[in-house]
Amino acid sequence: MSDKDIARTEIGDLGEFGLIDRIKSGITLVNKSSVCGIGDDAAVVPFSSEKYLLLTTDMLVEGVHFTKKMSAKAIGHKAIAASISDVAAMGGIAKYAVISLGVPASCSKQFISALYQGIKKTAKDFHVNVVGGDTVRCHKVIINVALTGEVKKNEVVYRNGARRGDQIFVTGPLGRSLSSGWHLRFVPRITYAKHLVTKYHPTSMIDVSDGLVADLGHILNESRVGAIIEESLIPCRSGARLKNALYDGEDFELLFTLSSSQARKYQDQRNKQFKYYRIGEIVGHRGNLQMKTAKGVLKKINAKGYIHF
Amino acid sequence: MSDKDIARTEIGDLGEFGLIDRIKSGITLVNKSSVCGIGDDAAVVPFSSEKYLLLTTDMLVEGVHFTKKMSAKAIGHKAIAASISDVAAMGGIAKYAVISLGVPASCSKQFISALYQGIKKTAKDFHVNVVGGDTVRCHKVIINVALTGEVKKNEVVYRNGARRGDQIFVTGPLGRSLSSGWHLRFVPRITYAKHLVTKYHPTSMIDVSDGLVADLGHILNESRVGAIIEESLIPCRSGARLKNALYDGEDFELLFTLSSSQARKYQDQRNKQFKYYRIGEIVGHRGNLQMKTAKGVLKKINAKGYIHF
Repeated sequence: MSDKDIARTEIGDLGEFGLIDRIKSGITLVNKSSVCGIGDDAAVVPFSSEKYLLLTTDMLVEGVHFTKKMSAKAIGHKAIAASISDVAAMGGIAKYAVISLGVPASCSKQFISALYQGIKKTAKDFHVNVVGGDTVRCHKVIINVALTGEVKKNEVVYRNGARRGDQIFVTGPLGRSLSSGWHLRFVPRITYAKHLVTKYHPTSMIDVSDGLVADLGHILNESRVGAIIEESLIPCRSGARLKNALYDGEDFELLFTLSSSQARKYQDQRNKQFKYYRIGEIVGHRGNLQMKTAKGVLKKINAKGYIHF
Repeated sequence: MSDKDIARTEIGDLGEFGLIDRIKSGITLVNKSSVCGIGDDAAVVPFSSEKYLLLTTDMLVEGVHFTKKMSAKAIGHKAIAASISDVAAMGGIAKYAVISLGVPASCSKQFISALYQGIKKTAKDFHVNVVGGDTVRCHKVIINVALTGEVKKNEVVYRNGARRGDQIFVTGPLGRSLSSGWHLRFVPRITYAKHLVTKYHPTSMIDVSDGLVADLGHILNESRVGAIIEESLIPCRSGARLKNALYDGEDFELLFTLSSSQARKYQDQRNKQFKYYRIGEIVGHRGNLQMKTAKGVLKKINAKGYIHF
């Protein structure tokens, strides 16, 4: 794309993925001390001889991610839980949060108070310390949560490690997160992540925020592989159709891959405290995502998940 | 204030300080492993045996902190430089940044591109790695920079260490930052901070973002002391009056206190690579800020700095 095109084109034409790709491609890391750059669920940087530090940031905007009609406490929960989910997707645990709040002058203190109660409650539940913040005037309510986490070097899981023959799993049913209200009360899968990284060493992991197809697409692109998922295996939330499970997003379940031997180890295990749903298998064709229908027919799946723009 | 009052009152009535105080008072840190809570320029948390980790977050809002008529590159500079200034005010150096961007669908990619160039240039100049981000749709352009830094345990400077007899200094002239455009091109005083913490051990430090009177007020409140500043000693930016220097804000100079012996050591030093302006002295009366006029008269100063709301 020429500079002239860039000047003429509006972001609305490209969608968020285009914009993020553009921003990513423009980034030059200043030195090589960072282990992993922009683009995974959280950034991974040096910390100690045994651990990496994780950094993530998530912005929620009134009218885009929530409305004032929703419970302010639930919005607060969602704001910090989304960041905790990012840390879980790297195999880590969450530690410290700093929170920026944009507030219209007309906003009631009752709303802000309830919002903050929601943040505090979830922070406490997941042993996160809220240690700082910024509060500014804004046209709409904006909540930005920046979170640090820690992960053992031998337990960190990226998006780019899926290999041919790996089995694909999710931690729970998908679809209709927005209409069912799940997006306001979801539980970040930090204990699932801990169980996974200590017992089964996932080869890749991501949280399902943009939708199963889009987020599996991220794993396939980063890992340079393809996948076949099976229609009959996709777990759908109550009331959700297959289409919802594939594209809706904001489920905040973990989507991960296990080597075939680790997958067998999990499936052979009798006492299942944590239930994972196998949904398909990694194949060798880069970026190629296919669905095996109930009748055994293979169909190519379009990569159109939840697009923010 | 009763719950009923809280429900009736709008944030606009209280000003940002009231809102921040309300938010601060509602925070309970989940465990005691954090060294310093909300309220200083950056949060200070455990890192290694020799160092603390610093965390800070700053949100800039279109129409409040900048307009689209300003240079996008300069806005990008301001966004990350404000966070670097927070880390400098703790005596630390900046390390990693994660950046959330709220963008209207109608925003040109040229604007975003220039904004990002400004962020990248300043990040590079100050050895900061931009390692992650979030991009969301928004009604206005919103930029949130969350930054980590590091500080040696024996060099960290809080707001609460000023003692009676300490001398008060600033690193540069104050006032008219907005009208002169300084707020878009200021240099975060990270090298000044390094010089100060290694040579003179400041007893307290803050960056001047809300205005000299407001920010000195923060030091006085946290340190439980008072101060007398001298009209003839306040350095004013070209074109700025005393009133501007006292209340305008967004100067991003460091305001700090040195013990009388360290102040003498600095003033006796001949080869002054770094010029600091002495503006007054800490006295014993808590929270009490007075001005000595050119005629030697003492006047009480009202604590009305730059109020965001």
